[in-house]
Amino acid sequence: MSKIDEVIQNIHPLNEEVLIKAQEKLNNLTKPKGSLGKLEELAKRVAGITGNLKPSLKKKVIFVFAADHGVAKEGVSAYPQEVTYQMVYNFLKGGAGINVLSRHIGAKVIVVDVGVAKDINPHPNLRIKKIGYGTANMTGGPAMSKKEAIQSIRTGIEVFEDEFNQNGIDIVGLGDMGIANTTASSAVLATFRKEKIENITGRGTGLNNKGWMRKVEVIKKALQVNLPDSEDPLDVLAKVGGYEIGAIAGCLLSAASFKVPVVIDGFISTAGALIALKLAPLSKDYVFASHLSKENGHRIALDYLGLSPLLDLDLRLGEGTGAALGISLIEAGVKILTQMATFSEAGVSAREEDSQYDK
Amino acid sequence: MSKIDEVIQNIHPLNEEVLIKAQEKLNNLTKPKGSLGKLEELAKRVAGITGNLKPSLKKKVIFVFAADHGVAKEGVSAYPQEVTYQMVYNFLKGGAGINVLSRHIGAKVIVVDVGVAKDINPHPNLRIKKIGYGTANMTGGPAMSKKEAIQSIRTGIEVFEDEFNQNGIDIVGLGDMGIANTTASSAVLATFRKEKIENITGRGTGLNNKGWMRKVEVIKKALQVNLPDSEDPLDVLAKVGGYEIGAIAGCLLSAASFKVPVVIDGFISTAGALIALKLAPLSKDYVFASHLSKENGHRIALDYLGLSPLLDLDLRLGEGTGAALGISLIEAGVKILTQMATFSEAGVSAREEDSQYDK
Repeated sequence: MSKIDEVIQNIHPLNEEVLIKAQEKLNNLTKPKGSLGKLEELAKRVAGITGNLKPSLKKKVIFVFAADHGVAKEGVSAYPQEVTYQMVYNFLKGGAGINVLSRHIGAKVIVVDVGVAKDINPHPNLRIKKIGYGTANMTGGPAMSKKEAIQSIRTGIEVFEDEFNQNGIDIVGLGDMGIANTTASSAVLATFRKEKIENITGRGTGLNNKGWMRKVEVIKKALQVNLPDSEDPLDVLAKVGGYEIGAIAGCLLSAASFKVPVVIDGFISTAGALIALKLAPLSKDYVFASHLSKENGHRIALDYLGLSPLLDLDLRLGEGTGAALGISLIEAGVKILTQMATFSEAGVSAREEDSQYDK
Repeated sequence: MSKIDEVIQNIHPLNEEVLIKAQEKLNNLTKPKGSLGKLEELAKRVAGITGNLKPSLKKKVIFVFAADHGVAKEGVSAYPQEVTYQMVYNFLKGGAGINVLSRHIGAKVIVVDVGVAKDINPHPNLRIKKIGYGTANMTGGPAMSKKEAIQSIRTGIEVFEDEFNQNGIDIVGLGDMGIANTTASSAVLATFRKEKIENITGRGTGLNNKGWMRKVEVIKKALQVNLPDSEDPLDVLAKVGGYEIGAIAGCLLSAASFKVPVVIDGFISTAGALIALKLAPLSKDYVFASHLSKENGHRIALDYLGLSPLLDLDLRLGEGTGAALGISLIEAGVKILTQMATFSEAGVSAREEDSQYDK
């Protein structure tokens, strides 16, 4: 059995008994039943995922998977390709958005080079796992080979496993960096969800109308040239995906197999989740959608997956920035479950059992 | 000049120069322009409020104003009146929702007894500022005298000033506790915003249909008996408000006069803001709406004030719980402004100045 199959075999439904007990506990806390809304749902699901009625989310990790895309040559981004490489150094120096927000929530950032076009110097927070120096230009053929697609997923599995075994992970956020990766993500989404390309193509880092129209044509061409098979997620990943999209998928699967809650970020992270959920539908219950991106198509992707975003803050940066904010909300929910007093502990009267009121 | 007038005189428009400089700074950070959406807007406004391009929100304080309501006798809540008193002890022991969420974001909780029906034992986190032992039943006449209404606003001003002068406050959240206070808040809103009472009356802590219909009738009766004058916010507060609603209004005004960002919570906190913004329209720019409550009428109240909520998590607990989560997001935005690297600092290429792209 392959490593990927092995991981998928280890993904199981949530712990029903713990889900029920968590709901009972939430109902006994000193607040009207259900009055903390989604915070309560988050807490309950984390309990069901971990199989623990008193989960703790101390060890927070955000992986930022970085890779380049051959399709950048088609002029589909407002920024030059070297920005991928430059931003990786910015992540390692702690100056990027994801660094600031990770510090805010107490998370560790691990950057994974799965295919940046230039070599990057070693750093304690960098994992060098280069599959190639950027994918091929998908308008002329597949972005990568099937073997590379498998390798990208395995890389995501490996980096999660290594960190989990060495330092522990209580919750994981999945971020990305890669000039032109919204183009690949739109193509991945378009393969699974038959929708007008115009409706699932956004402006990425800030294309104008002319650039956006060009991007739409590039995506259409890549799909026509490659004809990815929507019944075969690996085929889709290989033909129109990206190394970081595969690694995100693998990392998600690995986390689910270790019963660790997974928080996805924006459009690229969701494209990775699409591949993962196609490979292992049971992994869905382990996934939290942190936010709704401004990027066109993100809502369609989340709806397609049946995921509901926690935040709507007009973010469109990627890197895992929305995931960081989402992790903090999930942790807040978990603390409600584990730290609030019950009615009996606090000596607070329960609701009146008068016929006038619901029980 | 009265104390309240003096505070209002000290509320000024935001610092335009700092607003402009903050926007320039945000535009130079290593991210596509505007790609952190509302986080950037939050940061900019805090800079404009404080007049500081490098604001810091270390000292976070959440005031929970607690009071009882005579109208509770009419059976408008699913919980008995003694819950107000019991929950105050829960706040002081650290077991309530607001305690958990305040610890999560690193905020201090200060409970203010402005009119709980029973005496509460002294505690370092309690300010005893009782105006009465609960308001009068507003279905039989005014909830309080005009003098008491003024006193409630002054109390909010005083507790803010005292804490600000003694320990400092960088950002403040406004919470509430008081059985039957959604009834008073609906009546306050109904006075200013002519709307069917049914549309702005919610289920509070969890009324069933019969209880809800009764609550609607009670609010209608209170308005008919008192005929509050929508041109006179003090008259509205006195006739159909509550001690904690007045104190919330006063606290908001005081914060604005000291150039401190104010984060409102749910329906009751917003009713307090309604009184404050009617008294001092300039205070609006100092106010952040943390979340949209499940309580009927909250959206109408926020729309009426022109405030847009940051979060929508189906919360309906009050206490300042939504404000706590909102404060954390505002702090995240401020850290983006103050901690992210600029393009030149990080050696990252700016966007391509090709005619294909927007500049």
